[in-house]
Amino acid sequence: MELFYSCDISDGLVRLDPDESGHCVRVLRHRAGDRISVIDGRGTLMQCALLDADPREATATVEERISGFGAHHYRLTMAVCPTKNADRYEWFAEKATEIGLDVLAPVIGERSERRVLKTDRLERLVRSAAKQSLKGAIPEVRQPVSVKEFILAAPEDAVKMICYCFDGEKRTVRQVLEEAALPDSSPEICILIGPEGDFSPEEAELAISRGFVPVTLGSSRLRTETAALVATTMVYCEF
Amino acid sequence: MELFYSCDISDGLVRLDPDESGHCVRVLRHRAGDRISVIDGRGTLMQCALLDADPREATATVEERISGFGAHHYRLTMAVCPTKNADRYEWFAEKATEIGLDVLAPVIGERSERRVLKTDRLERLVRSAAKQSLKGAIPEVRQPVSVKEFILAAPEDAVKMICYCFDGEKRTVRQVLEEAALPDSSPEICILIGPEGDFSPEEAELAISRGFVPVTLGSSRLRTETAALVATTMVYCEF
Repeated sequence: MELFYSCDISDGLVRLDPDESGHCVRVLRHRAGDRISVIDGRGTLMQCALLDADPREATATVEERISGFGAHHYRLTMAVCPTKNADRYEWFAEKATEIGLDVLAPVIGERSERRVLKTDRLERLVRSAAKQSLKGAIPEVRQPVSVKEFILAAPEDAVKMICYCFDGEKRTVRQVLEEAALPDSSPEICILIGPEGDFSPEEAELAISRGFVPVTLGSSRLRTETAALVATTMVYCEF
Repeated sequence: MELFYSCDISDGLVRLDPDESGHCVRVLRHRAGDRISVIDGRGTLMQCALLDADPREATATVEERISGFGAHHYRLTMAVCPTKNADRYEWFAEKATEIGLDVLAPVIGERSERRVLKTDRLERLVRSAAKQSLKGAIPEVRQPVSVKEFILAAPEDAVKMICYCFDGEKRTVRQVLEEAALPDSSPEICILIGPEGDFSPEEAELAISRGFVPVTLGSSRLRTETAALVATTMVYCEF
């Protein structure tokens, strides 16, 4: 099943952008009248009939809508510091999308070596990962902010966790989710993952003072992107 | 902490191979008398004093041995069909080593598109991943065998699972581990992950007849290498 993406949907008509149109018409050789499947990136799958097989702007009429297509039963925000090597961040973004992610929030820590991150490549990556793994929703990729800004803006009602390497009592992701009074419908979960050099004590203290629970990801020493994927998987396992 | 690897250890003397010697002496500029940390790849960390800083064959004397260094409390064999794209298999091998893996067994399914796999690159990858994540043990990388050969040779006493996409009742990895009567010390766990085209019904039936429990990895549609890493993480979470 091949999915296309469109953000240009109105009056039961879907327009594909030049990339998607080219892929649909030139690569897959779809012709007018063919049925194609289009996601709106917000959770809905549309079964469509191709109206105009224009390789630059293909249009299709919506015949059926399926909401919550490939959805998971939680809303997960992963706030992850950029890795020195951008590839490693990108594979985290791709894999986390496959497993189940709603918001990717790059955050810059006081000890982050990489302090800039281009998000356009990440947006393309999560879009194709969502299509490939048959999900109607494409994760939102935020613009980078500082760790402290992110902490201060984090939603009150979310279950918030911070993975860091300082000593001190920590819970597991499972314990935190089991102990939290989660709403029945898609609870908000937010996990903060630090840079190679870890969070600064100030960042960790601020997070804890704002309700982030310190969690451990077990005894293995994990790279930033592996820790982020393990945490994503731990949440996925609980739902 | 920088770890070196040596498989040439005798009479309290460690010899580093040319790669490790060059890295130790040329790159890190260690000199005779420096303390270096060497793993034997079988779980033991040795604190050593560099005796001869030869950039082709450095030798060191063992001063202290720490067994079970960075060890996890289970023995996991992941039997995974090669992915079309070799990179994806390699990152699974690297990430699984960081998280906790003991044996990587490439298996060729009846529906595998890729039917050959070079293991020398994988061996180098898991070695550096083990060093990087501070583990004394390096996962064993087996030579590829057919899925059926692997099933028939799988140890009787291991907790065995198969992830496949056919319909029918399935348990979660957690359920299987909770219900199994696991020995206290490092239980043997074995998980079979199929190719993009899934297992053949014959392969699945043979596995089940040999005690492999069908498991689900949840509702998301995962690529082969993502499924393998999710399963690896699910086991890691339970110990």
